Amino acid sequence: MEEKKITARGRATRQRIIEATGEQILAAGIGGTTLDTVRAATLTSKSQLFHYFPGGKTELVREVATWEGQQLLEAQEPFVHDLSTWESWNQWRAALVEYYLGLGRWACPIGSLATQAAMTDPDLEAFLGASMSDWRDLLAAGVTKMQAAGQIDREVDPQRIAVVILAAIQGGLVLSQPMRSAWPLEAALDSALEPLHQAALADRRVPSSPPADA
Amino acid sequence: MEEKKITARGRATRQRIIEATGEQILAAGIGGTTLDTVRAATLTSKSQLFHYFPGGKTELVREVATWEGQQLLEAQEPFVHDLSTWESWNQWRAALVEYYLGLGRWACPIGSLATQAAMTDPDLEAFLGASMSDWRDLLAAGVTKMQAAGQIDREVDPQRIAVVILAAIQGGLVLSQPMRSAWPLEAALDSALEPLHQAALADRRVPSSPPADA
Repeated sequence: MEEKKITARGRATRQRIIEATGEQILAAGIGGTTLDTVRAATLTSKSQLFHYFPGGKTELVREVATWEGQQLLEAQEPFVHDLSTWESWNQWRAALVEYYLGLGRWACPIGSLATQAAMTDPDLEAFLGASMSDWRDLLAAGVTKMQAAGQIDREVDPQRIAVVILAAIQGGLVLSQPMRSAWPLEAALDSALEPLHQAALADRRVPSSPPADA
Repeated sequence: MEEKKITARGRATRQRIIEATGEQILAAGIGGTTLDTVRAATLTSKSQLFHYFPGGKTELVREVATWEGQQLLEAQEPFVHDLSTWESWNQWRAALVEYYLGLGRWACPIGSLATQAAMTDPDLEAFLGASMSDWRDLLAAGVTKMQAAGQIDREVDPQRIAVVILAAIQGGLVLSQPMRSAWPLEAALDSALEPLHQAALADRRVPSSPPADA
């Protein structure tokens, strides 16, 4: 056994197992995914699975959650770390909708895992809650940047706007799924972004600092 | 066998099984609920279960979905069938939040079932999609009544507002669950209701018909 020295080939196999499991969970749920279905899909042996994931299904599902979170975040880059201009917000919105379209099914891997974990796996639920919270903080940071740049009203609460946007994404997907259509997601997302735009109008009407040439 | 003559006692037993199964599904998911766990929780025999639910788990889960939908709708009565005044909308909002609070966990039985069904049971998914659609129609009908009464702008799209409100409820719950707090749900819901209030302001500024005493 040379567990500490993981070869490039070993890393690739491990990653292949994680991605295949992620696909299965998205299609059949955590409950419909077992080590046997993963073995069948990845043509791996039981000893290989336990070599890469000594903690078994629990560890594998946790690695899937980590990987899905990374994918979701990467899909929003570089905009989600900027969000300091209206253009950046628009590009972020487009990239996010594109990501869900590309998945081929209307579901947020993270939100859907969170709903399932709440019923079965408190540790995974806490981990996904923290992922959601990090995501919310990125959006809130964007709102704060817009405020600092004088683009929107300093009175609006960045965390509140961020939670409303995240809720719109998650709930929009719950409705987009049975309708097999992007429009509930897009309607919810645009409605959640509307307060930002309104804060911009308010700011133009009542500047928080006197205009230089007034 | 006297299957056609169901006694009051038989109906009560059947209902007791449906409610206990609903509790289990909310706590452990569809995947974590089996006829064996239902038998254990309800102290019924296998033959009793199949007497009341000849289609087994599939039929039982479908009956749970029907019952949960009725409970959710009843919790919103009588307001959800009115929604013709601002007061009715406010009472509806309060009743809905109260209902989710009363469940003791932040999850929509219908939304959570829909997320699970999308991965495992296309018939159940279609049934829940229809429930969501009926719910959306009730909210859209309320918006239309407000428009007819001249309370809000006739330009707003009732179906769009309705889908945004439903998405806020479902997504708000996805965020309220890990945070064990009502605030994401309430923030999302209030933000989704905001366009209604803004349509009211617009209507007051630009009446769609000339004021009688102008």
